[in-house]
Amino acid sequence: MDQNPTRDDPTPAELLELRHSIDNIDAAVLHLLAERFKCTRKVGELKARLDLPPADPVREAQQIARLRSLAVTADLDPEFAEKFLNFLVTEVIRHHETIRRANPAAALSPGRANGAHA
Amino acid sequence: MDQNPTRDDPTPAELLELRHSIDNIDAAVLHLLAERFKCTRKVGELKARLDLPPADPVREAQQIARLRSLAVTADLDPEFAEKFLNFLVTEVIRHHETIRRANPAAALSPGRANGAHA
Repeated sequence: MDQNPTRDDPTPAELLELRHSIDNIDAAVLHLLAERFKCTRKVGELKARLDLPPADPVREAQQIARLRSLAVTADLDPEFAEKFLNFLVTEVIRHHETIRRANPAAALSPGRANGAHA
Repeated sequence: MDQNPTRDDPTPAELLELRHSIDNIDAAVLHLLAERFKCTRKVGELKARLDLPPADPVREAQQIARLRSLAVTADLDPEFAEKFLNFLVTEVIRHHETIRRANPAAALSPGRANGAHA
């Protein structure tokens, strides 16, 4: 492997190694998120079955506080942790809306979708 | 634990269990992302040191294709996988911009920040 690459040969071994780690991490995260969406789908179904309110502000506040705190110990920006949770919640809402469109009889209440915060 | 909760007692055991799994997954993902940002920071430093171009469209295309493919096997929406990568890249760019502001002498080239796609 060329350790002194030029722009014609731009991928040094050190960069390849870092990219391999990034790819491994991305695969691990993606599979964990697949499990997370399984859980939030079950939460949505459970809340619908038990007629629990879709949104739960107390739970959401706990999740945000916990992730911000974990971020500090992991040397991550707490703002990023909160943005990340919001990113996932947006996706969960999208999942619920897809289910609702596919099955209007099982429509969730308007506003925030069931179990979005989980 | 009340298995037939009312709205005054809204957290059934099944919901608590799902939330616990979600919290475990979130902690795992957050710590993996901390490792990922360590890698992308090293990529940025390496590219600056070797005078490699910040953006690498070939690498980016490979990452997108790979994550979309992994998403299918994990039963996730490939669109979500691509959005997720974009979300991370945006954060990596923000990291690089923070470093650049803190150390203008080490300014990266304009446009996409060093190693954003990694």
